[in-house]
Amino acid sequence: MSEKPTIETFPNSHPSRDYSIEHEVNEFTSVCPKTGQPDFATMSIRYIAAEKCVELKSLKLYLQSFRDEGIFYEDVTNVILNDLVAACKPDWMQVESRWTVRGGINTTITAEHSGVESED
Amino acid sequence: MSEKPTIETFPNSHPSRDYSIEHEVNEFTSVCPKTGQPDFATMSIRYIAAEKCVELKSLKLYLQSFRDEGIFYEDVTNVILNDLVAACKPDWMQVESRWTVRGGINTTITAEHSGVESED
Amino acid sequence: MSEKPTIETFPNSHPSRDYSIEHEVNEFTSVCPKTGQPDFATMSIRYIAAEKCVELKSLKLYLQSFRDEGIFYEDVTNVILNDLVAACKPDWMQVESRWTVRGGINTTITAEHSGVESED
Amino acid sequence: MSEKPTIETFPNSHPSRDYSIEHEVNEFTSVCPKTGQPDFATMSIRYIAAEKCVELKSLKLYLQSFRDEGIFYEDVTNVILNDLVAACKPDWMQVESRWTVRGGINTTITAEHSGVESED
Amino acid sequence: MSEKPTIETFPNSHPSRDYSIEHEVNEFTSVCPKTGQPDFATMSIRYIAAEKCVELKSLKLYLQSFRDEGIFYEDVTNVILNDLVAACKPDWMQVESRWTVRGGINTTITAEHSGVESED
Amino acid sequence: MSEKPTIETFPNSHPSRDYSIEHEVNEFTSVCPKTGQPDFATMSIRYIAAEKCVELKSLKLYLQSFRDEGIFYEDVTNVILNDLVAACKPDWMQVESRWTVRGGINTTITAEHSGVESED
Amino acid sequence: MSEKPTIETFPNSHPSRDYSIEHEVNEFTSVCPKTGQPDFATMSIRYIAAEKCVELKSLKLYLQSFRDEGIFYEDVTNVILNDLVAACKPDWMQVESRWTVRGGINTTITAEHSGVESED
Amino acid sequence: MSEKPTIETFPNSHPSRDYSIEHEVNEFTSVCPKTGQPDFATMSIRYIAAEKCVELKSLKLYLQSFRDEGIFYEDVTNVILNDLVAACKPDWMQVESRWTVRGGINTTITAEHSGVESED
Amino acid sequence: MSEKPTIETFPNSHPSRDYSIEHEVNEFTSVCPKTGQPDFATMSIRYIAAEKCVELKSLKLYLQSFRDEGIFYEDVTNVILNDLVAACKPDWMQVESRWTVRGGINTTITAEHSGVESED
Amino acid sequence: MSEKPTIETFPNSHPSRDYSIEHEVNEFTSVCPKTGQPDFATMSIRYIAAEKCVELKSLKLYLQSFRDEGIFYEDVTNVILNDLVAACKPDWMQVESRWTVRGGINTTITAEHSGVESED
Repeated sequence: MSEKPTIETFPNSHPSRDYSIEHEVNEFTSVCPKTGQPDFATMSIRYIAAEKCVELKSLKLYLQSFRDEGIFYEDVTNVILNDLVAACKPDWMQVESRWTVRGGINTTITAEHSGVESED
Repeated sequence: MSEKPTIETFPNSHPSRDYSIEHEVNEFTSVCPKTGQPDFATMSIRYIAAEKCVELKSLKLYLQSFRDEGIFYEDVTNVILNDLVAACKPDWMQVESRWTVRGGINTTITAEHSGVESED
Repeated sequence: MSEKPTIETFPNSHPSRDYSIEHEVNEFTSVCPKTGQPDFATMSIRYIAAEKCVELKSLKLYLQSFRDEGIFYEDVTNVILNDLVAACKPDWMQVESRWTVRGGINTTITAEHSGVESED
Repeated sequence: MSEKPTIETFPNSHPSRDYSIEHEVNEFTSVCPKTGQPDFATMSIRYIAAEKCVELKSLKLYLQSFRDEGIFYEDVTNVILNDLVAACKPDWMQVESRWTVRGGINTTITAEHSGVESED
Repeated sequence: MSEKPTIETFPNSHPSRDYSIEHEVNEFTSVCPKTGQPDFATMSIRYIAAEKCVELKSLKLYLQSFRDEGIFYEDVTNVILNDLVAACKPDWMQVESRWTVRGGINTTITAEHSGVESED
Repeated sequence: MSEKPTIETFPNSHPSRDYSIEHEVNEFTSVCPKTGQPDFATMSIRYIAAEKCVELKSLKLYLQSFRDEGIFYEDVTNVILNDLVAACKPDWMQVESRWTVRGGINTTITAEHSGVESED
Repeated sequence: MSEKPTIETFPNSHPSRDYSIEHEVNEFTSVCPKTGQPDFATMSIRYIAAEKCVELKSLKLYLQSFRDEGIFYEDVTNVILNDLVAACKPDWMQVESRWTVRGGINTTITAEHSGVESED
Repeated sequence: MSEKPTIETFPNSHPSRDYSIEHEVNEFTSVCPKTGQPDFATMSIRYIAAEKCVELKSLKLYLQSFRDEGIFYEDVTNVILNDLVAACKPDWMQVESRWTVRGGINTTITAEHSGVESED
Repeated sequence: MSEKPTIETFPNSHPSRDYSIEHEVNEFTSVCPKTGQPDFATMSIRYIAAEKCVELKSLKLYLQSFRDEGIFYEDVTNVILNDLVAACKPDWMQVESRWTVRGGINTTITAEHSGVESED
Repeated sequence: MSEKPTIETFPNSHPSRDYSIEHEVNEFTSVCPKTGQPDFATMSIRYIAAEKCVELKSLKLYLQSFRDEGIFYEDVTNVILNDLVAACKPDWMQVESRWTVRGGINTTITAEHSGVESED
């Protein structure tokens, strides 16, 4: 897990039901590690909570912490997934990042975690 | 089940066929329990009726009763599902709430009930 | 089956192939049996013909015959499905009605028939 | 001017230039004085500042204060215009309210103030 | 003026300001006088009130009274304009009707009245 | 004026008011005089009637008469304008043709007639 | 197979891979066999080639050959599918025709062929 | 005027009427003179012909001749305008180029010529 | 003029013609001086060049220099206009900033400069 | 594998997770081998990386190398897939090309590779 502001959680008040939660953030920005230029993305976070839900204000601050960080598209998408999984241990979670055009190319990365998988 | 105006029903006139009904309400509003600020959502209710259908006018009044209530996104979606299931005992039901942006984040919650499941 | 103008049919010229036919009517109107106010819907009829296809002009006149009839959303969708099934005995048929907003609520009803099912 | 939370202002830092400012609020809600039912609108406020600009947080609280107030479409649009004009004395201001459908009817009200006009 | 349900009015509470009001009705229907077939239109009514505003419920009932009336596109648009002008004597009024396709042709009619003009 | 099916007219029942009429036809087709290939366009006809209005069924048949005719974009747009002006002598008329892509190029032609102008 | 211009083919240069090809034609027109009026459709042809691919210029000329032919929606969709299957013997093919509105009704026909099926 | 394939013209068959012609090309490409990278634009050409109209096939070939040419956005837009004005001497002409994003920036250039102006 | 990276220019190669140039940047971000939270905008810059055009790469770097700067919506729009005017002395220039939603409010600021005006 | 600029790769930093990567390029152009005319496409490349990811700048240069190459739609789509598979040996990859209209026909080609398949 990366060094970042804490992602806070609150107890899931309906844990016996598998329901889905999606947060979409249109204002994600980080920095290209090769060129030092800013990158911009829409970040979609979808999950099925187990015992804990992600608290929105801490999620916002966590995502803002990438503003000055040099990190590749593929990497940041997986790092966010790993950090969120570590914080709230969901039954299932998906992170999708859709990046604005660079060199005439639009890029989308989609990473998924299910409860039984383990990474890192 | 929460204390709320009664959700009225009428008999399903075609009970031998599994057909689907969807009601979409663009004008749902409740209050954030943390900040006291109003929240706004589009609420979609989809179900397959068993013996009873949801009456539209009582549904409207039931949903309006959240106007001054402080309640979280995740909670209100499940509460509405529970109340509607208790009222009309459908074969299947889904409630989806799509909330307007807060702190740069759009949130969508989707909860589902099938006849054999039991919650609360 | 309701008392209505006859839905005419013509022979399916390619009966050995299961192909799909969809007719979408943006101009359906009937009357609310409770308030006497007009209702408006887009009506989609999708089917896989067996021996007979639905003739378009008679379909138009059949659907226009609901203009002065007081009938609920759920009921009219199923009645149209029943009448069309009786007229052309398709392998499969679906009727979907999408109604304009009433009391801040948009409603969609979808009913389906497959050849082996029997209703009414 | 109606009795309402104060609309705060801050000094226009570029008063020698006529530039335009627009604020659009998708979440306006008030109450119909006849039926007691909630109404919903998108409210657009466009102006050319003279010495003062409208502060956004106080604007939000001011608009939220109509949440429980019974008031007609035509009236509330003009009241908001009058209150804002009194608060920031702009060279020109326009308020446009676009209301969700009632009885099959969408309504839009547009009221405009220019510096030399006086109302009420 | 045609024989029709009364279009009711209420006093304009801001008569000293020229502001605009628009009502858009997606559910207008009348009958083609030549074929007897139903016609469908979206009807937009825009005006600047003088002393009186059009009351919405009576407007709805007035427009519904054309449901069984045989009348041409061009004629009904002008008749509605004349009736509304007679009822509320506005400073300016425009009626625009946009009709669904007939014979591959979409038709739009737009008629305008200003205070000094007189017709019929 | 070209040799074509007669464009029929009916008397304008509101001649004392200058109101506008628009007919849009999505299904216009003619033939390229150079290649013999079919061309396709959306044809918009807008006018302010004087004493006569264009009858819709004869307009449809008139426009269909170009189906096998070899004629250039610029020419057919002006010919239709000339024929319609000759038939109904409007106070003002505009014909706009928007053609589907040929050789990577979309073309739009717009020709206008006002009462005092004379051509051909 | 109908009597029509030859649909030419060229060898599939990647026969060991199952990849899909789609051609969409917005400019299809034929004639209604009952009324003699022109019909218009968008025609989508999707297939997985075996040994042969459809050559585009001959496809265009083949589809243009229906311009003066009286044929029903359901029939022409199946005839085109049969002719294309006979010409290029694909592993799988689908023809979908989406017709412009007639009598307030939009119609879509979708017919599919897989390599083992035989028709006519 | 630049050295380029000839832009051919044909006589305007309706010179006594001022009507407008627009050609839109979605497939324009040239080369950035600084980086050597390809640029892409949609090019709109609008004009009122005097005695001559632009022939479409030669226009296509003329525009394709920029495919390997290094030239700035501002320059190529004006060069095309100058060449077209020289070829057909229109009463009025406008060229608008809308370029795909480079460095996060979308650029649009619009240049206009009227008969009495002279440049270069 | 604010202290910022230099906005470079290049000579306008068609100074005798008044043509317009527009650059739209979807990726502008600065910081709210009150809350320290990031703000996001689409920035449109439209101008008519006199002797000099704005060079795109230096424009990108200039706009990126606001990434860590605390500045109000109204102020930054006017500052950018002033800096660009100082750099290229255009005949006319407009800067429009459209900001993402904050507290349920979307804001747009539009400032304009013409050659004879002077500010600051 | 065709003779082309090298497609460079970098190590996949999250190889234990199956996540998807999509690059969409709106600016692909090649040449029709029959007519010599330019073709234009949007090219979508979707894959699940194994050990290597495709480097974006080399991908851009690789795709630009088709600018002057005469090659058919079906062929170029499969060639790009083969070259990318050879370069990064993904678990799964799909290439979809959507071409601008030619002769009234829009064409889309979709080719897919999974790890166990071998072609050429």
